[in-house]
Amino acid sequence: MRTSRPGGFATSWLLVALLSVSHVTTASAETGYDAWLRYAPLDPAARDRYASLPRQIVLLGESPVLRTARDEVVRGLTSMLGAPVTAAVTRGRDPVVLLGVLPRVRDVLKDAAIPTQIGADGFWLGTLATRQGAIVVVAGGSERGVLYGAFALLRRIGAHEDVTRLNVREEPSAPIRWINHWDNLDGTIERGYAGRSIFFEGGRVVDDLTRVRDYARLLASIGINALTINNVNANPQVLTDAFVPQLARVADIIRPWGIALSISIDFSSPRRIGGLDIFDPLDSRVAAFWQDRVDAIYRAVPDFAGFVLKADSEGRLGPSAYGRTHADAANVIARALAPHRGVIFYRGFVYDHLMDWRNPKNDRARAASDNFRPLDGLFEPNVVLQIKHGPIDFQVREPASPLFGALQKTNQAIELQITQEYLGQQRHVCFIAPMWKEVLDFDMQARDGGTPVKQLVTGRVFVRSLGGFVGVSNVGRETNWLGHDLAMANLYAFGRLAWNPDTTSRQIAEEWTKLTFNDRPQVVETIVGILLDSWPAYERYTGPLGAGTLTDIIGVHYGPGIESSERNGWGQWHRANGTGIGMDRTTATGTGFVAQYSTPVATSYENLATTPDELLLFFHHVPYSHRLRSGKTVIQHIYDTHYQGAEDAAGFVTRWRTLAGSIDAERHASVLARLEYQASHAIVWRDAITAWFRWVSGIPDTAGRVGNYPGRIEAESMSLDRFSNGAVIPWETASAGLAALCSAGGTCTARHRYQGAAGTYDIAVQYFDESDGTATFTIAVGDRQIDRWVADAQFGSGAPNGHTSTRRTIRAVRLSPGDEIRIEVNATAPDSGALDYIEITPAR
Amino acid sequence: MRTSRPGGFATSWLLVALLSVSHVTTASAETGYDAWLRYAPLDPAARDRYASLPRQIVLLGESPVLRTARDEVVRGLTSMLGAPVTAAVTRGRDPVVLLGVLPRVRDVLKDAAIPTQIGADGFWLGTLATRQGAIVVVAGGSERGVLYGAFALLRRIGAHEDVTRLNVREEPSAPIRWINHWDNLDGTIERGYAGRSIFFEGGRVVDDLTRVRDYARLLASIGINALTINNVNANPQVLTDAFVPQLARVADIIRPWGIALSISIDFSSPRRIGGLDIFDPLDSRVAAFWQDRVDAIYRAVPDFAGFVLKADSEGRLGPSAYGRTHADAANVIARALAPHRGVIFYRGFVYDHLMDWRNPKNDRARAASDNFRPLDGLFEPNVVLQIKHGPIDFQVREPASPLFGALQKTNQAIELQITQEYLGQQRHVCFIAPMWKEVLDFDMQARDGGTPVKQLVTGRVFVRSLGGFVGVSNVGRETNWLGHDLAMANLYAFGRLAWNPDTTSRQIAEEWTKLTFNDRPQVVETIVGILLDSWPAYERYTGPLGAGTLTDIIGVHYGPGIESSERNGWGQWHRANGTGIGMDRTTATGTGFVAQYSTPVATSYENLATTPDELLLFFHHVPYSHRLRSGKTVIQHIYDTHYQGAEDAAGFVTRWRTLAGSIDAERHASVLARLEYQASHAIVWRDAITAWFRWVSGIPDTAGRVGNYPGRIEAESMSLDRFSNGAVIPWETASAGLAALCSAGGTCTARHRYQGAAGTYDIAVQYFDESDGTATFTIAVGDRQIDRWVADAQFGSGAPNGHTSTRRTIRAVRLSPGDEIRIEVNATAPDSGALDYIEITPAR
Repeated sequence: MRTSRPGGFATSWLLVALLSVSHVTTASAETGYDAWLRYAPLDPAARDRYASLPRQIVLLGESPVLRTARDEVVRGLTSMLGAPVTAAVTRGRDPVVLLGVLPRVRDVLKDAAIPTQIGADGFWLGTLATRQGAIVVVAGGSERGVLYGAFALLRRIGAHEDVTRLNVREEPSAPIRWINHWDNLDGTIERGYAGRSIFFEGGRVVDDLTRVRDYARLLASIGINALTINNVNANPQVLTDAFVPQLARVADIIRPWGIALSISIDFSSPRRIGGLDIFDPLDSRVAAFWQDRVDAIYRAVPDFAGFVLKADSEGRLGPSAYGRTHADAANVIARALAPHRGVIFYRGFVYDHLMDWRNPKNDRARAASDNFRPLDGLFEPNVVLQIKHGPIDFQVREPASPLFGALQKTNQAIELQITQEYLGQQRHVCFIAPMWKEVLDFDMQARDGGTPVKQLVTGRVFVRSLGGFVGVSNVGRETNWLGHDLAMANLYAFGRLAWNPDTTSRQIAEEWTKLTFNDRPQVVETIVGILLDSWPAYERYTGPLGAGTLTDIIGVHYGPGIESSERNGWGQWHRANGTGIGMDRTTATGTGFVAQYSTPVATSYENLATTPDELLLFFHHVPYSHRLRSGKTVIQHIYDTHYQGAEDAAGFVTRWRTLAGSIDAERHASVLARLEYQASHAIVWRDAITAWFRWVSGIPDTAGRVGNYPGRIEAESMSLDRFSNGAVIPWETASAGLAALCSAGGTCTARHRYQGAAGTYDIAVQYFDESDGTATFTIAVGDRQIDRWVADAQFGSGAPNGHTSTRRTIRAVRLSPGDEIRIEVNATAPDSGALDYIEITPAR
Repeated sequence: MRTSRPGGFATSWLLVALLSVSHVTTASAETGYDAWLRYAPLDPAARDRYASLPRQIVLLGESPVLRTARDEVVRGLTSMLGAPVTAAVTRGRDPVVLLGVLPRVRDVLKDAAIPTQIGADGFWLGTLATRQGAIVVVAGGSERGVLYGAFALLRRIGAHEDVTRLNVREEPSAPIRWINHWDNLDGTIERGYAGRSIFFEGGRVVDDLTRVRDYARLLASIGINALTINNVNANPQVLTDAFVPQLARVADIIRPWGIALSISIDFSSPRRIGGLDIFDPLDSRVAAFWQDRVDAIYRAVPDFAGFVLKADSEGRLGPSAYGRTHADAANVIARALAPHRGVIFYRGFVYDHLMDWRNPKNDRARAASDNFRPLDGLFEPNVVLQIKHGPIDFQVREPASPLFGALQKTNQAIELQITQEYLGQQRHVCFIAPMWKEVLDFDMQARDGGTPVKQLVTGRVFVRSLGGFVGVSNVGRETNWLGHDLAMANLYAFGRLAWNPDTTSRQIAEEWTKLTFNDRPQVVETIVGILLDSWPAYERYTGPLGAGTLTDIIGVHYGPGIESSERNGWGQWHRANGTGIGMDRTTATGTGFVAQYSTPVATSYENLATTPDELLLFFHHVPYSHRLRSGKTVIQHIYDTHYQGAEDAAGFVTRWRTLAGSIDAERHASVLARLEYQASHAIVWRDAITAWFRWVSGIPDTAGRVGNYPGRIEAESMSLDRFSNGAVIPWETASAGLAALCSAGGTCTARHRYQGAAGTYDIAVQYFDESDGTATFTIAVGDRQIDRWVADAQFGSGAPNGHTSTRRTIRAVRLSPGDEIRIEVNATAPDSGALDYIEITPAR
């Protein structure tokens, strides 16, 4: 960052007027709604640092986006500085913050040391000495650039950075910085974990778009420029004349934030809503249909961004119905969009989900390249291939998709999932930036000289003007948008990386923490530490060594479910059996997937000795006795990492507790509750994965932990009244495979006569919180009730299993030998009020 | 057999009269209802052999049982000889068949060479030369003995044996020759596979007891002398005053057949129907309750046989509720029965079904001996311990229960299951006599000199007067009693072995075949061959080497379900994992079960080298690579035997077909249908077991069969309309783990374009016949419908799995390359009309 040289120059103000500003921040409880745009009042010491900051904001020019930028600066500074800040059109004597697009700024501040050029969406922040004193300039390469510059300025102040000598030019890495939503028109969200859709309800756009506006503001602050609001598994109704006005309403509300509207479309729309009996992309009537619909949309939404299309994938209809190619499909729609400068994103997530799992040569990982590499060069210029970051589906660890390196004549964007579908579903903290960085920084060696994925998707390597980043988000109506306050770091990180993929995870985490909480060193250190440790921890207690997340891949994608990956056509196979684990994807003996990479990368993955341990099982099938670089066997690594991961998760609780009093009580409590839940669910994961591998491999844990749970009393071996014993499916998700089920109605009772030493203990109750009803649990010691709670959470499953397994810990309970510990359950059918075990451990 | 010497002696007939006889056999279709008591008319050649047989039947004495004996002889001879046979009380000149108890016979036939003594229930058959010519004498050691002698005479004639020189004395091996039924008062039958109860309906005894009478006749013909008519999981209502008259009705109808009534009782009856708040066997009010109820029963049924009691087992209440012993429980009831000379059978089937499966020392097999051995000598003299033949539960292969050799001062009876609960449920042919014989002939070496189980249970070894055999039968309202005509051989065999356990399986099979079908050598050879090969075949395609049946042990107990045995408290563990299989029950390293046997037996089982292969996995856990005496590895043995077993089952069809024209068409067709079904279900078993072990072990089949199914096309990879793909649970019960489900209503269509060589083929359609609805299947080649059927069978499961997997084969279909094979399914919900695969093989 260079410091601007002060210098004399003329200002030529036009007129002065106080303008009303609509946003006023009032002190209120911290709900998470404001996320990183809290503009928390600075403490007096910090405030002094910004004493010289101008309190008048002058906007050059007039447009919705420019007004937004100006108003945001007024709002932010007012709130943070705790002093009146006014919007003005002035040639007064006071210093100002001046906002405008570059030509207007240069016109006003002639001869000033201002860049002569700024890329579209870029901005320049500068401090200039004038006769009125130091003014602050926010110059944009476009109106949107002004808005981004305004947010950048506020971000610096929010993070307590010095703004007295600004001279910063920033330009985004790529033009595509989009967010996709998988919201359905009925208000549900596919993979939604934070309430219903903010966009839709009952088949229509919601009446009150306040949350959409506030969401757009969050997105604008991190540089997002387009928003696809409906599910890629699209309802064709979005293209009808009846629906277009509703789209226009959304477009109107997000437009002032520099965000353009986009929708997902159904490829069979010509047949489903177009009155045709065909949707063949080479049929002229089909082409006419698309042109007609595109034109209709642009009449209502002139700045419409374009479409996202999922075709021939997971049951969606596509061009294969007529023997046409993906290029045929994309191009017919692209040609309709081109006159309006719209684009179409064609999803590369195309694979056969009915693959024969018994054929050792079949491999879903091959699908993207197999499908699209032969089509390189055949797509229209306004087609973008939207490619998931890995070859499977957002697993906890995957290599970069080889398709990034294989397309030289096709626009591409990387699809990153902000939604923690396979990463704990926002009930677990899992900061994904480090995972994304691994992929973005991975050198595909597509040609000489280094070709990291980030340079491929931004179009730098093969000189494509259209490229970038698509994030899949599932914000919902929960006040804090994503359910977990810490999950917002992922949304933030996506925007920041799309803007500049060279940013480090730590930089992002620090910035986000300061803005979202505060900048006390202990707070920043603790929260950044938890964030940076969270993905490694999640990986440790879920899927090891690149084998996949090891969750139930058929349905909920949440709790453990090892065998769900196997013996079906979905292709998320890890091939674990009694002797070994891993997918052999080598060229020599496996599926040949590795040959989709460039030769140097392929050579590395082909060879067991040069494959990184963390991706070992993605590329190779090895016996459990195979030794990793650490010297451990694969099986012992599985045991050890799962115990380590569960300890890591427990550590997050301890670390978070140290923040009491250092951050607001509201979010401290709500995050603590999630972290405590996570720590207990990490135990479910740990026990499930280790028990299954212990069983199938027949190899004991050298540390003796697996299968040995001190203090644990299985519900099925307690003295039961009205409970029945039931097998849990999959078995590894219940301790000892069994639970006590309270399915008969009435009050079920489980009793245990404590026979250990007298003392103070924590009692953990492991039960199943099914989504299909409620169950009330009470626990008593003798005639003393020590806890009571209602299990009514929604984990997406109505059965006892790894999704619903939940722990309640009652701390510091006095126990004496002979005490009866009694648990009573009242369940409303069909909830089975299932109990797994209790665990009595010395109080912590 | 000695030939009686003709000699002169006086006959002193009293009077002559023609008596009406109620039974007349009329020619009718062969329904199986008459079982082995068909009394088929002899062909002329055979009839000549019996030309000299007396046609007048004279009964000495008068009682219901004696009249039954006389009438049966009239009925049998009339039918077989095709000539008038009359009952007479005569001193006429014609030769007669003379029936009576020994003293009466000796009184009439003074000086004749007739045994001076015949044991109770025994008989003597003799041919004596008199002045009127050769008379035939049936002398009984009791009235029941006369009846048994009458049946024995008819059996000889039915089997075309010579009766001109009879001199045969037979006595039963033991006084206990009982049949248990698991019929519920509501008319259902626990483990019933042949229709509803013949005894009960709607909480009462049925009005029409005709079938009970005819069933009693069948049982009498094989020497059964008591019948327990209700489920051991007993309804306490059977003991109420309201119910006793109904019991009396059953007793009255079976009494003429020499069969005494017995019932199963609920140990908590004092509390449930007795107005007490207690059922403690040591409480005097409880004792009074039992005495009161027993007295009430004996007032209505003076010859009541006694009770069967299942207590403290599988959730039934028992003496443990009060800390009392099984002896306490049995004795309180025994003392009530003793004055009436009634007995109580206390079931040894007591085990903890909530055992912790993770404890390698736990072992259900230990339970019977652990529970009862310490009580030896503590039971009242009219208590009989009823012991299942093996230590687990009627699995396809078990060692003899060690308890047989452990009780020296307790009456015991062996419980054999005629019901094919774990042996194909009467849909598969499985002749159990050879299995029973293995146990009965097994030398427990309980003391020097040889102590086979048969001599222990009959009381010979430890000189107990009360001992014998209990068979569990599940005849139902299906016309042929057990559903499968060949299953009746098991009921027959049970009676014959209870009478004389030294009889060979072949003898029994031959006798039964001649009586049930006919005595043509080809017929006898074929059917006896199938019967004797059937248990080995069933074992081959189900559970190998003593591992258990490998069926779903939780619910239906029918189709394959390997992992159902594991990870639950039921204790039918085989401990199969990725590296090996088997329960280590040795003393050195296992559960110590082997130490329950006498030292020589224990030594043999303790040692891997001396354990017979067929019980290897019952006693030892071995790696899959362990070599059997055959030189094969365990895993290859599993593969090979399963293929062999399926071939055996296919061979039964071929062999049975050769009988067309040699037996009646009705039963030929009905048995053929069952054998064809069995052959197809054996393939389900074969594929499920081999696929699972192939998966878990990772060891391929050296013969390359497992996982390689020529001509098979998976439904899920056909061109599907309205079908959805679904996982089948457990996965190994569907080919490739998946099925196409027609759950959405309407007509689902699966299409396959045939691309093989032109020719004539058999097309097998593998589908799932769920019990929860019907599904109509049609199959067409091009526009030619080649078959149509309705799947409405009852396999006890409403899901696609190993129980419901069913095959339909359309034979000799012309196929040409390009032909479309089309299967349409219409299912009524909730039936999923599931389709597994089709298989196209050259026409046989």
